[in-house]
Amino acid sequence: MKKKLLHTPEGVRDIYGRECRRKNAVEEALKHVLELYGYQEIETPSFEFFDIFNSDTGTVSSREMYKFFDRNNNTLVLRPDMTPSIARSVAKYYYDCEFPLRLSYKGNTFRNNQSYHGKLAEKTELGAELINDDSPEADAECIVIMIDSFLAAGLSDFQVVIGQAEFFKGIMDDLDLSEADKAQIHEYIDNKNALGMEMFLDDLALPDDSRNLLLEYHELYGDVTMLDHAGSLTKNVRCLCAIDRLKEVYQVICRYGYERYISFDLSMVNYFDYYTGIIFSGYTYGTGDAIGKGGRYDNLLMQFGKNAPACGFTILIDDLLSALSRQNISLSRKERGYLLLVSSPEDNEAAISLLSDFRKGGRKTEWMTMAGDKKIEDYVAFAASQGADRICSLIGGTVTVRDPEGKILESCSLEEFRRKN
Amino acid sequence: MKKKLLHTPEGVRDIYGRECRRKNAVEEALKHVLELYGYQEIETPSFEFFDIFNSDTGTVSSREMYKFFDRNNNTLVLRPDMTPSIARSVAKYYYDCEFPLRLSYKGNTFRNNQSYHGKLAEKTELGAELINDDSPEADAECIVIMIDSFLAAGLSDFQVVIGQAEFFKGIMDDLDLSEADKAQIHEYIDNKNALGMEMFLDDLALPDDSRNLLLEYHELYGDVTMLDHAGSLTKNVRCLCAIDRLKEVYQVICRYGYERYISFDLSMVNYFDYYTGIIFSGYTYGTGDAIGKGGRYDNLLMQFGKNAPACGFTILIDDLLSALSRQNISLSRKERGYLLLVSSPEDNEAAISLLSDFRKGGRKTEWMTMAGDKKIEDYVAFAASQGADRICSLIGGTVTVRDPEGKILESCSLEEFRRKN
Repeated sequence: MKKKLLHTPEGVRDIYGRECRRKNAVEEALKHVLELYGYQEIETPSFEFFDIFNSDTGTVSSREMYKFFDRNNNTLVLRPDMTPSIARSVAKYYYDCEFPLRLSYKGNTFRNNQSYHGKLAEKTELGAELINDDSPEADAECIVIMIDSFLAAGLSDFQVVIGQAEFFKGIMDDLDLSEADKAQIHEYIDNKNALGMEMFLDDLALPDDSRNLLLEYHELYGDVTMLDHAGSLTKNVRCLCAIDRLKEVYQVICRYGYERYISFDLSMVNYFDYYTGIIFSGYTYGTGDAIGKGGRYDNLLMQFGKNAPACGFTILIDDLLSALSRQNISLSRKERGYLLLVSSPEDNEAAISLLSDFRKGGRKTEWMTMAGDKKIEDYVAFAASQGADRICSLIGGTVTVRDPEGKILESCSLEEFRRKN
Repeated sequence: MKKKLLHTPEGVRDIYGRECRRKNAVEEALKHVLELYGYQEIETPSFEFFDIFNSDTGTVSSREMYKFFDRNNNTLVLRPDMTPSIARSVAKYYYDCEFPLRLSYKGNTFRNNQSYHGKLAEKTELGAELINDDSPEADAECIVIMIDSFLAAGLSDFQVVIGQAEFFKGIMDDLDLSEADKAQIHEYIDNKNALGMEMFLDDLALPDDSRNLLLEYHELYGDVTMLDHAGSLTKNVRCLCAIDRLKEVYQVICRYGYERYISFDLSMVNYFDYYTGIIFSGYTYGTGDAIGKGGRYDNLLMQFGKNAPACGFTILIDDLLSALSRQNISLSRKERGYLLLVSSPEDNEAAISLLSDFRKGGRKTEWMTMAGDKKIEDYVAFAASQGADRICSLIGGTVTVRDPEGKILESCSLEEFRRKN
């Protein structure tokens, strides 16, 4: 056997035991939240034609995609992102639909990371898209569902930071600068590099108010009161509309009672070509990366031929799980009610009828026949390590129920046990 | 926009609307069955090193795998099969475990089919592996769970056909033939080609009893009584043990009360190197392909360095869904309880409190604000098409509840409605 046979490729991993139970429990809880908001699930293929994820429609560079070829030599890629696939599906199957369309998904996405540094190449994402609705209520709904999802996963200490792609675009409209200069300014803001910005602006002839705003840009974050301050720094209509929109969205979030989870950051400018309105990210302690992100992208569906506004978000399940684990939060529903039945070989026939009783009653029951030189204590210890809450033995017609510590809770004949239970 | 942008590659597809609801409902029902038998979920990566799925460990030819390279030029493949990955995981994480180990999975597998003919290149499989248990009870458990899964999915008319890899191997042991001749005989049996077999055997010098058995081989199927007949045709110990094992497994299945779903077929000889004991497949009408298959493969884990017996099965969700659809069987749990709330824009604030009430009560509630020239009837029709069972409107402070046909069931002020509900 080659040692490599036990290994998985860099960046991908097996999930089993307690971690897998936790992942399933979280996914179920999150799916339930999306159902409560009326979202309908959609599944798209794990790989698609390269063009679906090109630079006009995606946020992932071509170099970070896993590529291969079909039999006709078309380039296929493992999807790096779910949203372009959902947008394609909506343009294809819901082309004529003008009603708000709520779609949710759970699926794995793939990135061939340039530097590994422990970054996952395969991630599970669970999210939603709200199509055909350009209202502040739609923006707020995406944020509120993300908050409800974090709460359902068991988090209590988290923040959703909201930005606005239009604010930056408005400021750029006012400046007579080359695209390269604008991109450079974008990078300084993105990196919160105040010093770099200052030195860069020294070489540009800018009106005083624009210059002051850019110098202050990296400080445009905080609670809702920051928005008034930001509004006082500019007269650009696009910027002011952007701020008004944020205030409207905030008002709706307040009606849901979730304002305590919200802060704003106008220096959040990632993917500024892709997003056309609000941008938001969810953070908690225990992981440096966002555990959820989303925003409005009203131009994306047009790439697939349908003119429709859209917003959405995705929750990065793996990052969320890391955070839950580091915060010692467990969703242990999955472990409750698991029972191990151990029978001696001569009781196997009776064991099956007992098993059927348990399972008909909805009890998760695993069956083992005593083998080798293992004692009942060995089975109790093993079952306890697997999360069983009861160990039931059937030996010589006698049923004995133990707790995971091995304490006997009940012991009687099979007939009596079946009569009582 | 290029038209190709709306297309998915050959062999893969989008699943949405009713079909996706049905798929989710079936998957949930099947997961519940596996939980009831004490199986624990495991997730393995979508792609692995090529060696994991090579000819010693898998049943899929290299030409049918999707291959690509990592940054170190290792060959990666999209997994064509789940079992080798589970076997690798068991050898890695449960190397020292001697207790019966029950693992379940749900995941997509990928095959780059030579001829498409509507064959799916990406399929969802849900299945289980039972490791460290070589008993007939373990074989029976796999078959019984498959039956319970079909029942849970809503099927009532299906058969599980059981074969035995050892029976064919025993017969081959007795014959002094080249590997090529054995492979040819294998192919005639696999294709149930009785005429081809007869002509082929005419050229070989075989003892009479072996010759007669091979000529009758394609008829060795039927109910449990066939096994006695098959046993009378040979004195080979390996064959007789194989038949005894089938009888033992059948007895256990009878104790579960599932014998009516069982038939036997000794001419089921697929993947004879891979399987080392029972082989079984589930069939129903509405699809030509098996909807589930499994068997015992006691040599597989050794390929990954752990000496442990194993059996398992997989349910082909896409094929099962086709069958359910053609048999007009629906699992409509997902559609129950879905409500659409339509509010006029001036009622939006009140709508949010009403929405929260519904959702806190576990009601799946989608919200739309009346827009454009759409009338309440339009929303009712749209909601009905989406599977809503109630449409609730909130207009000018009045709540009106309609059924999907538009019939008004209740109409009162918001205050009164909240008091009553």
